[in-house]
Amino acid sequence: MSLVLVVRDAMVFKKITLIGTSDESFEAATDDAIDRAESTLQNVQWVEVDELGVEVASVDDRQYQAEVTVAFELEG
Amino acid sequence: MSLVLVVRDAMVFKKITLIGTSDESFEAATDDAIDRAESTLQNVQWVEVDELGVEVASVDDRQYQAEVTVAFELEG
Amino acid sequence: MSLVLVVRDAMVFKKITLIGTSDESFEAATDDAIDRAESTLQNVQWVEVDELGVEVASVDDRQYQAEVTVAFELEG
Amino acid sequence: MSLVLVVRDAMVFKKITLIGTSDESFEAATDDAIDRAESTLQNVQWVEVDELGVEVASVDDRQYQAEVTVAFELEG
Amino acid sequence: MSLVLVVRDAMVFKKITLIGTSDESFEAATDDAIDRAESTLQNVQWVEVDELGVEVASVDDRQYQAEVTVAFELEG
Amino acid sequence: MSLVLVVRDAMVFKKITLIGTSDESFEAATDDAIDRAESTLQNVQWVEVDELGVEVASVDDRQYQAEVTVAFELEG
Amino acid sequence: MSLVLVVRDAMVFKKITLIGTSDESFEAATDDAIDRAESTLQNVQWVEVDELGVEVASVDDRQYQAEVTVAFELEG
Amino acid sequence: MSLVLVVRDAMVFKKITLIGTSDESFEAATDDAIDRAESTLQNVQWVEVDELGVEVASVDDRQYQAEVTVAFELEG
Amino acid sequence: MSLVLVVRDAMVFKKITLIGTSDESFEAATDDAIDRAESTLQNVQWVEVDELGVEVASVDDRQYQAEVTVAFELEG
Amino acid sequence: MSLVLVVRDAMVFKKITLIGTSDESFEAATDDAIDRAESTLQNVQWVEVDELGVEVASVDDRQYQAEVTVAFELEG
Amino acid sequence: MSLVLVVRDAMVFKKITLIGTSDESFEAATDDAIDRAESTLQNVQWVEVDELGVEVASVDDRQYQAEVTVAFELEG
Amino acid sequence: MSLVLVVRDAMVFKKITLIGTSDESFEAATDDAIDRAESTLQNVQWVEVDELGVEVASVDDRQYQAEVTVAFELEG
Repeated sequence: MSLVLVVRDAMVFKKITLIGTSDESFEAATDDAIDRAESTLQNVQWVEVDELGVEVASVDDRQYQAEVTVAFELEG
Repeated sequence: MSLVLVVRDAMVFKKITLIGTSDESFEAATDDAIDRAESTLQNVQWVEVDELGVEVASVDDRQYQAEVTVAFELEG
Repeated sequence: MSLVLVVRDAMVFKKITLIGTSDESFEAATDDAIDRAESTLQNVQWVEVDELGVEVASVDDRQYQAEVTVAFELEG
Repeated sequence: MSLVLVVRDAMVFKKITLIGTSDESFEAATDDAIDRAESTLQNVQWVEVDELGVEVASVDDRQYQAEVTVAFELEG
Repeated sequence: MSLVLVVRDAMVFKKITLIGTSDESFEAATDDAIDRAESTLQNVQWVEVDELGVEVASVDDRQYQAEVTVAFELEG
Repeated sequence: MSLVLVVRDAMVFKKITLIGTSDESFEAATDDAIDRAESTLQNVQWVEVDELGVEVASVDDRQYQAEVTVAFELEG
Repeated sequence: MSLVLVVRDAMVFKKITLIGTSDESFEAATDDAIDRAESTLQNVQWVEVDELGVEVASVDDRQYQAEVTVAFELEG
Repeated sequence: MSLVLVVRDAMVFKKITLIGTSDESFEAATDDAIDRAESTLQNVQWVEVDELGVEVASVDDRQYQAEVTVAFELEG
Repeated sequence: MSLVLVVRDAMVFKKITLIGTSDESFEAATDDAIDRAESTLQNVQWVEVDELGVEVASVDDRQYQAEVTVAFELEG
Repeated sequence: MSLVLVVRDAMVFKKITLIGTSDESFEAATDDAIDRAESTLQNVQWVEVDELGVEVASVDDRQYQAEVTVAFELEG
Repeated sequence: MSLVLVVRDAMVFKKITLIGTSDESFEAATDDAIDRAESTLQNVQWVEVDELGVEVASVDDRQYQAEVTVAFELEG
Repeated sequence: MSLVLVVRDAMVFKKITLIGTSDESFEAATDDAIDRAESTLQNVQWVEVDELGVEVASVDDRQYQAEVTVAFELEG
């Protein structure tokens, strides 16, 4: 489901798992995790959503949560 | 992925499965199920989204659906 | 999780898999796939969301993606 | 795979898990569980078959078993 | 679990997903889907049962349902 | 989902996987596998149905198939 | 994997999901959930362990957690 | 794991399932399925390998098999 | 997750499934199954835990159960 | 995905799990397991690949590994 | 199943996978992995147990193993 | 399925996920990912293949891809 331009052979990608949060929407929780990944990683390529959830008890409003896998290209 | 304050040992939680609906968004369908859970249960803690879907044929507009697992604390 | 009126016995449904995209939300990506299905198929009944993702590297903004299974009724 | 008439927005459904038994067939074991659900619940909508099995050692004849998820509408 | 005679190298098969229905049994629902496949496809080879279910609310009697994957050989 | 009388501690069970066939029903295919297990094993306890399928191309009529896991008690 | 005496035909079982906690072991967390089930339900038959986890941040010591499915017989 | 150039918004992709065969390798069986897809479809984008297997009984040599999902872009 | 010394090429391993029981702990139930395997098999290499459960109804105390996969080396 | 000639009703198949190894390829590791199965079993029918892996630390070169399920016909 | 105090919006968590070992129990193997995580990471929040196993061949006694996912909060 | 010499108690392993690419074979794509892991990590132990795929649209030839989990020992 991911759509990225490939130009060289033998590229290697790495995947990490993050959980983003937002009190607005699942998209914002997902973007939250991507923003954090891009603040320390270059070459973020695509993101897979692994789980969605909502925290109810410990927050004032409901908090939407998205656990995502972020794929980025490792530099040669 | 759930984020709840724990203060006592040997707490017991129960999980139930609900399906909420909305003609606006997946978040609203999820909230719909949480609202219903909170109308009869105290101590709702967190919610996991199990499945998302859309009903097309039997409704005027499209109806977003969210099947969720609701976790709540059983009183001692 | 699907909600459709049934009136005849021995109906047969078929399922196909599509991926819709949107730079706004997961709902819009899902609707995008349903719109495409309805442009060529009659009797679309319901939709199951199989995977959600976000394309980052090859698009200007982030592109939300929804892989969905579309169920429609086969005519007798 | 479920086929139910929807007429109102924001309906909420609940799912429970039952195991029915029969010494005749998997259909009868499934019906056994649905019968039991309908004896205490109104508005049973659809049933998903989760697991099929056969008990051999502790019964005279073989006993067919069906673990099913029963979905019913919660009243407003 | 499938049992088919193979005589040529480099055959290619295609799989499609259908849902058959019956008010009698899971076998009849499965056969219903296979009958429909064979009405338009030659060379149906084998069928895998993906899901079984029962529709309760929208039909007079209970309606058994079988979601199946049908494999057929593509002609060269 | 299995229902067996236990009387001693530290019993050990073993599981094997068989595929039974029948041209009548899924129950008969399941029974076919259990019959074969009982012809060589004592103490068959319970059976889990792992997969159901139908062979179409290589048989005169359709052949129902059931892949099952058979659990039996190992003697001390 | 469950081992229970069966004496009547057409018994129906119900399954619920609980999470037990303990600061000693996974067995104690499991027992914690079973104890709670038996305090309100008769005829608890067997228990399947669905997930194990450990809470670290919000407790003084580590808290072992066991999410379990409890099966009990419904009375006729 | 897929790597494709995206240039327009609201593209829609479709996925189909094929099984390729080869008596040489899993790569050749996979290529066999892709070749067949490209003979009738334009815009094949990427392929996911779902299952690998080997046919033994009905062929002279062993026949490697690859069940793959082929994704292609639907034209607007 | 398994950790075994390899010294020859083209070794072949076999896996079998056992269920051990204990009224003390999940470790003891696991060991129970391994003990049984080692009483008839040489070269047991490693064990994967597939399922944990507890029998309640048919035993005096609770009986912990562990379904495990045992891997052993086949002699040349 | 398996392709085998069927000629009699009520055949019963058994499945076993083996792990083959090779320092050349996944196909060779798979063949290694099939060779071993055929050295003791007649009527091997088909093979499903369950897992692929590579051993790195304990071997001179990398060792490709294939965990496979081998299906063979039980004689009447 | 995780229980953690949340106080700020837009927190981001990261998950890593570790395997701990112990010759005493699954709890000790789990704690072993958590200890290692806490020796280099602050803000460890909760742990999910992914797999349990036992190493037999390469150790004097049996070695219990726990593959766990450790979630910790990323600092802003 | 992994085969590694163990000599000390309480070892801890870590797992990371990489995607290797090759225009020759799945083995080469897997090796590509392992080579990259070994360029920065000591003590790589074993590798599990999670997914195989082929990129078609954005490369001149087809590009084989292997998503793998690499396990390595953490130093004390």
